[in-house]
Amino acid sequence: MNEEHYTLYPIGVVRSALTSLEAAPPQGEEGAPEAWLQIFAPVAQALAGITAGDELVVLTWLHRARRDVLQVHPRGRRETPLTGVFATRSPDRPNPVGLHRVSVREVTGRNVRVAPMEAIDGTPIVDIKPVLGHVDER
Amino acid sequence: MNEEHYTLYPIGVVRSALTSLEAAPPQGEEGAPEAWLQIFAPVAQALAGITAGDELVVLTWLHRARRDVLQVHPRGRRETPLTGVFATRSPDRPNPVGLHRVSVREVTGRNVRVAPMEAIDGTPIVDIKPVLGHVDER
Repeated sequence: MNEEHYTLYPIGVVRSALTSLEAAPPQGEEGAPEAWLQIFAPVAQALAGITAGDELVVLTWLHRARRDVLQVHPRGRRETPLTGVFATRSPDRPNPVGLHRVSVREVTGRNVRVAPMEAIDGTPIVDIKPVLGHVDER
Repeated sequence: MNEEHYTLYPIGVVRSALTSLEAAPPQGEEGAPEAWLQIFAPVAQALAGITAGDELVVLTWLHRARRDVLQVHPRGRRETPLTGVFATRSPDRPNPVGLHRVSVREVTGRNVRVAPMEAIDGTPIVDIKPVLGHVDER
């Protein structure tokens, strides 16, 4: 690493029934529940245009992850070969940004109900983007 | 915003023939060229397992973006209604993290050739993740 760096400010927080990493499913639809994205008032204007049915990408800050891990056994299975974290979705990585593709169920003021959202209660949200259909998905 | 914040360190840099924002296409395959992801030596081990043909999500830091913009006219067209940046892919947003879905063409040491990559030369890279197939795409 060089000394250059950038500062992320949370734009909101995940409110979820998931309260521990142990209860969190590994990825996506393997049981991930609904969650509320609670967006902070100073940036709430940035939600304008998001409605039920939208497909979004939510970026979070995985605040409990380790940043000094460069290789892991995928999904914690010792029998899988050691793999670089950039080739995995391990939360442990130099910049522990979480990427969650979700559907919007409801928008109420600055609260957005989404699913599936595999992030524990209190996870900071750093960005929200729309999924871009064919251009994005190819 | 509250005072909580997180620090991102670049893990590499985009090397591209695109040298200006004006030349950069708006999104995806509307002419975006190949680029090299030049990963820094201290984190190069984290690439282990990435090979030609892989589909990746590259997160960048859009270092020329404005962070005080909450609403935009999508794609800069004045006739489109003012929309919250979280409902658009505008580079201007509170945390200007860029999201690029790319295919790997070649891996040579700690350099990864990808396309399409709509980021200008010198754009800092902050994370790389695999696309997760059906779990991710639903």
